[in-house]
Order: sequence, then C-alpha cells, then structure tokens
Amino acid sequence: MIKLKKIRKYKKDLPYSYTLGIFLTIELLKLKPKRIQSVILHTKGKNSQGISKIIKLCDKENINYVYNDKLINILSPKGNCYAIGVFNKYEKELTKDNNHIVLVNPSDSGNLGTIIRTALGFGIKNLAIIKPAVDIFDPKTIRSSMGALFNIGFNYYNSFNEYVNSYEEHYFYPFMLNAKENITSIKPKEPFSLIFGNEGCGLDDSFHNVGTSVIIPHNKDIDSLNLSIAVAIAIYEFTKSHI
Amino acid sequence: MIKLKKIRKYKKDLPYSYTLGIFLTIELLKLKPKRIQSVILHTKGKNSQGISKIIKLCDKENINYVYNDKLINILSPKGNCYAIGVFNKYEKELTKDNNHIVLVNPSDSGNLGTIIRTALGFGIKNLAIIKPAVDIFDPKTIRSSMGALFNIGFNYYNSFNEYVNSYEEHYFYPFMLNAKENITSIKPKEPFSLIFGNEGCGLDDSFHNVGTSVIIPHNKDIDSLNLSIAVAIAIYEFTKSHI
Repeated sequence: MIKLKKIRKYKKDLPYSYTLGIFLTIELLKLKPKRIQSVILHTKGKNSQGISKIIKLCDKENINYVYNDKLINILSPKGNCYAIGVFNKYEKELTKDNNHIVLVNPSDSGNLGTIIRTALGFGIKNLAIIKPAVDIFDPKTIRSSMGALFNIGFNYYNSFNEYVNSYEEHYFYPFMLNAKENITSIKPKEPFSLIFGNEGCGLDDSFHNVGTSVIIPHNKDIDSLNLSIAVAIAIYEFTKSHI
Repeated sequence: MIKLKKIRKYKKDLPYSYTLGIFLTIELLKLKPKRIQSVILHTKGKNSQGISKIIKLCDKENINYVYNDKLINILSPKGNCYAIGVFNKYEKELTKDNNHIVLVNPSDSGNLGTIIRTALGFGIKNLAIIKPAVDIFDPKTIRSSMGALFNIGFNYYNSFNEYVNSYEEHYFYPFMLNAKENITSIKPKEPFSLIFGNEGCGLDDSFHNVGTSVIIPHNKDIDSLNLSIAVAIAIYEFTKSHI
C-alpha cells in the first residue's frame, strides 16, 4: 500500500492513477473496488450527498478514506474537486468471441475516453490499443470516459500484427480513405474488429490488405472527421441491428 | 481598426476574436478575409511553409501582417503558436430551405466546435444556438471546429420559440429519451431541424410537443452519450441517403 505522503501528481510511469471528482470516484468504487488503495476527501464536500455515498461504499468494501484538502489541491489544481480515488493500474484481457475496437496510435486522451464511453454504450466492451499511444490511465482519459473505462477490457500491443495473431478469427474492418466498402451499405460479420488510425494521419496503405476496408464518406469542406466522431458513427452503424 | 497595442487576451464581450495557429489562420484568410483586422506572426515560424502561405494570402487580400512574438505569447500562453489572425466577429443568417442543427443551451466549447466540423462534413451549414450558451467565437471553439466555423451560417436566439417562429416550415426532430421514434427506423423529411439539449440535462419534456421526438438507443452501462457524439450519429443517419 502506498503511503499518502508519497503520492505525487499523475505521471504515466506511476503504478497507480486517480479518479478526480465525486462522480468518477463513485464509479471506481462500484466497478473496481479491489483496485483501490485509498480515497481522499475534501472537507468542503463534507455534507454533500456524493461524499456520503462515497463513505458508505468505502465502509461496505472496507476501503480507507481520509480528509486531506492539501493533497487534493496538489493532485487536482483546478479546484472544485471534492473526492479522489487512488487505484492500482491493471490490465483486463479482451474476450475472443466479442466485438473489438482497435485504435492504432491514438494520441488524444480526451478522444480515447469519449471512444470508450461510446463503445460501452453500444455494447462493445473490448478495446485494443496499438503502441505508441496515449495512456489509458491518464486522469483526463478517465474523466472523458465518464468512468466507462472501469467497465471494459483493454490491452496494449506493440504492433498491429501482435494483435492480429491473437484474434485471427475476427472479421477486420479498417476505416480509411479509398476503401472497398461504403459504411452505408455494409453488412457486418461478427465477431468484428473496427480499426482506426491516429488522429493526424489515419491508417497507412498496408491496411488495404487487412479484411474489408470501410469509408465514412464526407464532403471536401472538411479534411477529416474527429477520431471520436468517426469511431462513434462506425460503432452505431455496426451495432444498430442489435438495438 | 483596433491598434495592436490595445489587443487583449480573449474575452466573450470583445468585438473581435483570434485564430490561434497557422492552420486556423490560413482557413480564416481563405474563408473570411474581409473580417480580418490583422495577422500576427512569430519570428520562430519565419521560414516555415505555413507562414509563407499566410504572407501570400495577406498580400493577395491586402491584409496587414506583423511579427510580434511578445503579443503572440500573451494571446496564446501555451507556446508553439506561430500565427494569430485577429478578426471582427460577425453573424451569418441561416437559410430557410436548408437543414439546420439547433443546440439548446450548449455549454462546452470543445463540443460546439466538433459539432460544427461534423455538420459541415455532412453538408449541414446552418446552426441555431439557443441562449444561454457557450460563445461560438471562443478560440477553443474555433480550434475544435478546425476552421469549419468560417464555413457555416449561425445565429443565436433568446428562446426556442424565437427560433421556431422564423422557421415554422421546417420538420422538427428533438432528440430525447422516451421519444416517439427510434433513430434506426426514421424516414427524415426535409428541410429538417435536429434539436439537442444541454450536455448535462438534455431537452425538457416540453419538447415532446415539438415535431417528432427521436431517441438514439444505448444500453444502461452509460448515463448518456457525449453531446458531440449524439449529434454526429443523428447527422449521419439523417443525411446518409445523400452520400
């Protein structure tokens, strides 16, 4: 167990991370109680419903909580943060029989969190991330996922080939320009892997040889769709027969 | 013409705003040259292709440009900004015969910009915003729109009724829970107005009486979709017959 004294502002190489705020800390307590080291509370929130709920959950799960305004101000300098959950990072393997999202070199923590939230909402609970990539445990990612991160399986891979070798039986759909299929006429086969490139440069041409490439057509007034938008449209179209 | 000496960090009540960065300043020069007061350049970018392009466009449009590193550092304290366009704010009326997006009380500048970029990409060039609402000329909105803002018409309204009175012949589709229609089975009539509520609370029940309410179904693992995601899925579904 790490001592509170030793806790520092978040960095990628720390073995633990934080949920900043009451809502996210409650999600953490509900979904990943066994990963929690401790919960830090701000005296300003002392009489709030949220803090009462957090204390109840801590008691139920036998988790240590402490009021420490100074530490909260260090970890969340923007203020207005009344609760922080400190938890050990973890990995959670993907499941073979289910649909996957594959992000190749994502670089924006806000996009990553939003993608996780959208995927979970449409029932996709498996995320593969190809390195180099943004840190899934960055508090910014956790925040933009609205806690959905704690409800999905995910894994980092050193290369796309490493991922493919583990899930050869999947149907692969790389999203790119000059693709074989228009998304509006796709008939998805499952289990599928929807594959997306980096925010700036997309997928390279080698992905034309991977499964069935798909395009989301848009006009030339914009260069591209935001990554989290493209992924959302793809997820919606590929899962709509289930909803 | 405002004197450079008098230029201050962006605030909502200023009559002018900024494009921060080379890409956005080029978009401004291409799409709204007549609104530009001046262009400020950073000496660090002096030999870059982007700055050369900006200078060419300034010369063509007879726009004043000046190197002023200190001013750039004040207006964009994060650094890495080599060009800023200073432009007068403007309004651009919506067109009656075309499709609209209507945002009721949007509060997040990043979401607003992303929505503008998506809408433009799928051919919707008209945006109505119901007050109170985030500022469309906030440099953060301009940035997340990737310059798409300069390519659309938009207008603020004091109430939804004020908007409706101007566009009564439109087909209204408010997006909400407990809606009449599922988005997956919608047959859109045009010109349409797709209506969305605030990030935190959505549209209130009074919108059940407005046109045909629509739901984007998702499971209960998430409370809601991010606003920019919901708008994107709606735009995609309502425009896909055209693409």
